[in-house]
Amino acid sequence: MALGERPLVGVLGGMGPSATADFYRKVIDLTAARRDQDHVRLAIWADPTTPDRTTALLGGGASPVPALVRGLRALEACGARVIAIPCNTAHAYLADLRAVSGTPVLDMVDLAVARVRRIAPTVTRIGVLATRGTHRSGLYDRAAATHGIEVVHLPDPHQGEYVDAAIAMVKGGRDLGLAGSLVARATRALGDLGAEAAIAGCTEIPLVAQEAGRVLPLVDATMALAQRVVALGLPAAPDLP
Amino acid sequence: MALGERPLVGVLGGMGPSATADFYRKVIDLTAARRDQDHVRLAIWADPTTPDRTTALLGGGASPVPALVRGLRALEACGARVIAIPCNTAHAYLADLRAVSGTPVLDMVDLAVARVRRIAPTVTRIGVLATRGTHRSGLYDRAAATHGIEVVHLPDPHQGEYVDAAIAMVKGGRDLGLAGSLVARATRALGDLGAEAAIAGCTEIPLVAQEAGRVLPLVDATMALAQRVVALGLPAAPDLP
Repeated sequence: MALGERPLVGVLGGMGPSATADFYRKVIDLTAARRDQDHVRLAIWADPTTPDRTTALLGGGASPVPALVRGLRALEACGARVIAIPCNTAHAYLADLRAVSGTPVLDMVDLAVARVRRIAPTVTRIGVLATRGTHRSGLYDRAAATHGIEVVHLPDPHQGEYVDAAIAMVKGGRDLGLAGSLVARATRALGDLGAEAAIAGCTEIPLVAQEAGRVLPLVDATMALAQRVVALGLPAAPDLP
Repeated sequence: MALGERPLVGVLGGMGPSATADFYRKVIDLTAARRDQDHVRLAIWADPTTPDRTTALLGGGASPVPALVRGLRALEACGARVIAIPCNTAHAYLADLRAVSGTPVLDMVDLAVARVRRIAPTVTRIGVLATRGTHRSGLYDRAAATHGIEVVHLPDPHQGEYVDAAIAMVKGGRDLGLAGSLVARATRALGDLGAEAAIAGCTEIPLVAQEAGRVLPLVDATMALAQRVVALGLPAAPDLP
């Protein structure tokens, strides 16, 4: 396949910026490349002003859908052949986006759960380190159920003190060491509730999940999405998607 | 200024991917943000299949201009109000791009030299760690001359053994420790030639320039561009550009 035929992958990102930068870094690192021209062609729409997804899902804020659709249209105008969204919570709006998109949109949540099933075939209970919005939407519960896996949830105070606090620290670019400890504490609490593995189900979490990865087997949803993007974006790509 | 009015900055990137990721990371880190919505709005065209700029400038390969213009058009279709190019060598084609662009295109080379002048007002000779293509184009020589600064050049074998080799290692994602040593060696050689400061004038160089920064005062052209982008992309932005 000639270089020019390599499909352009559109990234609907900026939610938050560090998570999109982490996703981009993972796509680069997963690519076996000796020179620029060996890499995946990407167009990245990084609009951090997209209204907060969790605030909207909890009923307190503007819908992010108009901003997401604007980004989708921009990526289509760029010529994107497939769209990746490196934000778990935004997947609560995946059906809305797919309904208006002329381009296939990947499902990071399903890719992450499929990866758990692949690396730990006998797991029956997992925890998900995610925003309140992602939990409220039931995204991971539904995706896990299709693989015969149950999602256990932290009690509300632990979700707030450990997970929500850590995500806010990463988004603010501060106290990353403390954020890592909080994520590890949340992972231990999930283990106490019977989780045999965990998913870093918010794209901010992998940035501070090193310690947590020593507590339970941890699948990084961002990495699962990056792996799929590299598989689709390189010359030997299978049919889309 | 309302969030929606924040200007979209277009990034013509992917040359190489790691350099664009480094630029994106610098834009994020330079932004005083407590939440996603405080960050710069970016659209990043990351097409690593753009023909190699140095090969073209040395007369041995396809022109990158058609690919660059395609990226420029994509960014304009996204609504970009100003364009940044985190690749020094591509600036050899800046006049071609400005001639066809309806959108202002920033000049990273001039921003980098202006920064040298600001941090070291008495400097008269500098070295530039850059590709052969950038050197051949005379980009930095001309920009420096307007500030009363002379650019000293490494002899051909040192350019190849130290700088070209280090850049190829970063582009290939390998031997980064060795690449850092080579860049430091190049910087010492520039000092021996009378350079009082140096510019990391290839966007791959800052990724391996820690040791070099202890040899001579080192201005990072990528950082100079990121600073300008943050100044332009936030609500308090001055008039474009």
